[in-house]
Amino acid sequence: MEHVVKAATKRCPFVSKTDATTLRRMMGTGLVRAGSHCPVIGGALPTGDKVPFRGHRGFKSQSKHMAKEPSLEEIHLKAGVTDRSSGMCRHAQAVKEASGKPNEVASIKQETLPSAARNASGISPMGATKFDYETFYQEELRKKKRDKSYRYFNNINRLAQEYPLAHLAEPNTRVQVWCSNDYLNMGGHKKVSDAMHRCIDTYGGGAGGTRNIAGHNQHAIRLEQTLADLHQKPAALVFGSCYVANDATLSTLGKKLPNCVFLSDEMNHASMINGIRNSRCEKMIFKHNDLVDLEAKLASIPLNRPKVIAFESIYSMSGNVAPISEICDLAKKYGAITFLDEVHAVGMYGPRGGGVAEETPGLLDKIDIITGTLAKSYGAVGGYIAGSSPFVDMIRSLAPGFIFTTSLPPHVMVGAQTAIEHLKTSNVEREQQRSAVRRVKQSLSEIGIPVLSNDTHIVPAMVGDAQLAKLASDALLQNHHIYVQSINFPTVSAGTERLRITPTPAHNTEKYVQSLTGAMDQVWRRYNISRLDGWANRGIDVGRFCKFPVLPFTASGI
Amino acid sequence: MEHVVKAATKRCPFVSKTDATTLRRMMGTGLVRAGSHCPVIGGALPTGDKVPFRGHRGFKSQSKHMAKEPSLEEIHLKAGVTDRSSGMCRHAQAVKEASGKPNEVASIKQETLPSAARNASGISPMGATKFDYETFYQEELRKKKRDKSYRYFNNINRLAQEYPLAHLAEPNTRVQVWCSNDYLNMGGHKKVSDAMHRCIDTYGGGAGGTRNIAGHNQHAIRLEQTLADLHQKPAALVFGSCYVANDATLSTLGKKLPNCVFLSDEMNHASMINGIRNSRCEKMIFKHNDLVDLEAKLASIPLNRPKVIAFESIYSMSGNVAPISEICDLAKKYGAITFLDEVHAVGMYGPRGGGVAEETPGLLDKIDIITGTLAKSYGAVGGYIAGSSPFVDMIRSLAPGFIFTTSLPPHVMVGAQTAIEHLKTSNVEREQQRSAVRRVKQSLSEIGIPVLSNDTHIVPAMVGDAQLAKLASDALLQNHHIYVQSINFPTVSAGTERLRITPTPAHNTEKYVQSLTGAMDQVWRRYNISRLDGWANRGIDVGRFCKFPVLPFTASGI
Repeated sequence: MEHVVKAATKRCPFVSKTDATTLRRMMGTGLVRAGSHCPVIGGALPTGDKVPFRGHRGFKSQSKHMAKEPSLEEIHLKAGVTDRSSGMCRHAQAVKEASGKPNEVASIKQETLPSAARNASGISPMGATKFDYETFYQEELRKKKRDKSYRYFNNINRLAQEYPLAHLAEPNTRVQVWCSNDYLNMGGHKKVSDAMHRCIDTYGGGAGGTRNIAGHNQHAIRLEQTLADLHQKPAALVFGSCYVANDATLSTLGKKLPNCVFLSDEMNHASMINGIRNSRCEKMIFKHNDLVDLEAKLASIPLNRPKVIAFESIYSMSGNVAPISEICDLAKKYGAITFLDEVHAVGMYGPRGGGVAEETPGLLDKIDIITGTLAKSYGAVGGYIAGSSPFVDMIRSLAPGFIFTTSLPPHVMVGAQTAIEHLKTSNVEREQQRSAVRRVKQSLSEIGIPVLSNDTHIVPAMVGDAQLAKLASDALLQNHHIYVQSINFPTVSAGTERLRITPTPAHNTEKYVQSLTGAMDQVWRRYNISRLDGWANRGIDVGRFCKFPVLPFTASGI
Repeated sequence: MEHVVKAATKRCPFVSKTDATTLRRMMGTGLVRAGSHCPVIGGALPTGDKVPFRGHRGFKSQSKHMAKEPSLEEIHLKAGVTDRSSGMCRHAQAVKEASGKPNEVASIKQETLPSAARNASGISPMGATKFDYETFYQEELRKKKRDKSYRYFNNINRLAQEYPLAHLAEPNTRVQVWCSNDYLNMGGHKKVSDAMHRCIDTYGGGAGGTRNIAGHNQHAIRLEQTLADLHQKPAALVFGSCYVANDATLSTLGKKLPNCVFLSDEMNHASMINGIRNSRCEKMIFKHNDLVDLEAKLASIPLNRPKVIAFESIYSMSGNVAPISEICDLAKKYGAITFLDEVHAVGMYGPRGGGVAEETPGLLDKIDIITGTLAKSYGAVGGYIAGSSPFVDMIRSLAPGFIFTTSLPPHVMVGAQTAIEHLKTSNVEREQQRSAVRRVKQSLSEIGIPVLSNDTHIVPAMVGDAQLAKLASDALLQNHHIYVQSINFPTVSAGTERLRITPTPAHNTEKYVQSLTGAMDQVWRRYNISRLDGWANRGIDVGRFCKFPVLPFTASGI
């Protein structure tokens, strides 16, 4: 076994400090077996038939994961990274949402599980009863209902010929949709649907395989060329969704870059949080849009250590815009790369719809990786990354979420491409949308509805209470035929519940704006929801709310 | 530091065998810091203010993730779980594919990184130079090329009116596609495309939101009802792909069920491997379709501990079929639940296309969770799960991969639903496909091409060499206008490289079958690829290959 000891001595800080006699004594006591599970020396130990413990039944696969590790976010939660002034940070929220676990992650299971689950939690060495799965699922659902985070979906059928109208379950009903992410109504654009129809007739309804096996085609090639051009990058890669694009790209980057560390804005989307988490790398969460905090964290890391700054251009629930250029400057100074999510910006910002980064000349060149979606402004489905050719080719070659998934149907790619090309030259949709947004912000502010002030198309009307927000949303739909989904904890912090309104070009009429304003006025009255003065009276700083009159919201040259 | 030593002594086999004096001597030499990176004792070491080294700049957030942990699969690789008789197991392959790392995981980075990467791997405390990302990406690609796992995509444009023909980059070319997973040509079925056209005209090209925000509609409701009915389950849930369905469901289940352990077939798909991995639960990998091994592992776990057996009905690269009923019996005996992936079976097996499990009366009732795809036999895109209502509702409520993704476009859901409904009653496509498969197996076996014997529609023609398989695939395409993608390591074991042929109803003519057989005959001759006798002469057991004449391949009553 000398070769095992030799290999271990080279690598392991424990072993290298132990004298040879002690080590030899340890050889017969499971040292090698334990070492094979160790990240420091495991890889250096001989594998295969030479490993003496290979015959032990069930041992290999039990490995170190027998005791469940806390996730990065769980550690984050426990470490109290939460910014109290702004409520629970987005990272923590997303995890809570995904896991349904409150802050005391470690203790919750024992305290709140039904008895069947408690019995089965592995503490007794060999339980006599089987685990009751169905009771466990039901209890998880009861917990969601108790904390008001259980979601009831509304049946909304958006009508392409009648945007922004939709019907409910009954086809003859009509409601106004005020919260869709088909921001520019491109899903119903005739150019887009014509292209999709033609493609279905010629190439069928599906791709028929992964990109490696029969699912690569001219549509994918053209779409990726179009996207690379949109962001002025050498290459792009299309995924089934931007959730997958973010998750697969960040986790693959983190797994490949040696000793990588992520710097992640605390308000980042769940897809980024999960990608970083799945990479198992170190993560530093910087305060939302806070350059000072980001720089302090960057400066604490060795210059030559790979670091990825992950952030968004527009944060979807607040409409906040990131200081992209300054973040890029910090990245350059400290040897980091930038990963910018433009999901809520592409199509709408920049002279050709290239996103917020396209609005500042020269800025696109400073960003390393841009991700975006085909499912919002471009009205289709799917997501993508854009960056250098070697980077994109590496993700193409290594990311399981890309490799093992059927390609998007050809007609979906054609539809998205048509929308992108259209919005590269047409400003009509952007102008109409901006006009509608200004009108709504103005009209709501005029009657004291508290709208978070921002420089984007997102109109967050603050309610500040989960039950009230749900009641307001339900009343708008049932009594006023207006659909605005309430956004509650854990998507936003408790106490900052809101109606998130996203006016589109189709809403840009006095009729629609007045209809929304009138309905919200009534609902606010009916449920006695606070207006601006109410928030001010409760001692809350209303400086972040829109003032009447509302100024034009975009810095773009349009 | 006594509390640190105490915690470490309890857990670490290294520390527990070292005498106290030696340990104390080690305290000042980075032992604790190294321990905090160790999967065995890392979690047990005190965190927060009690940790004496907390003042080290940047250390707290570096925590145990500073030295990258090996993944479960990496440990699996190192532990030599590989079944030598069948080559590298699927779990190991998928990870290798995804990570591009050969077996010596721990050593590879230092040995093969470009100097910029070596400098930046965090060994020097504060590097003077920035990490060279682009060089690193390029080196990763060079590694893929060196080990022959770099993939070159073929531009294949399948023609809905001319199945199984496609054109290459040039629209006037025609090639026969013999490896698509649009197994029943439903992507080009008129009923399907008509339904999609109508839906696009009425409801537009995209869903416009997540299921919670404007993206839930009658199409999703109906599709989920159709899928629940297909699998005779109370509920179903649609995802953007079955990769996401598997990944999101398994990782969410594992995170929620207390102290859950997964039992995973060694040939499982990457989506399942990743879902289990992302759950961070314990995993036991059982030998492919091996009931004895599975039972031994089940028996080693306390009865009351939650356990999930994850497996596939048909394994896509070999066409092997799982002993579903027997696995369900074991699950019941040992208090486990079953997670069955029917991706390569739905639409084609069972009287209504409900999958292999539907072929045995009463079997569907015994399975807890079924997952399937809309992207293969149903010719569209997307994936789903089916199971009990509380289970499906829990996943709906908690899985980030579901919650944070835009819904599939209405017309995609309508297209898939039309295909499912059609195949619930029509046997024409299944019969035509089976006939085509029999013909191909028969015809290839007749000329000694070694086809792995199985009871399914998958026809693996064995080549046994990576370069030869690629040459054969390229020659078929370039010289014979026949497209069959070569399947090489790491998707299959080295030495078992193959052409994976999937005949569809459209291939069921003498002309097509002879065209394929003739071309393969010539290519086999040209490159001197082994036929059955060649494999036998090399001492390889040819008992697993098809014998001529080939018997009908399905047990279904059709």
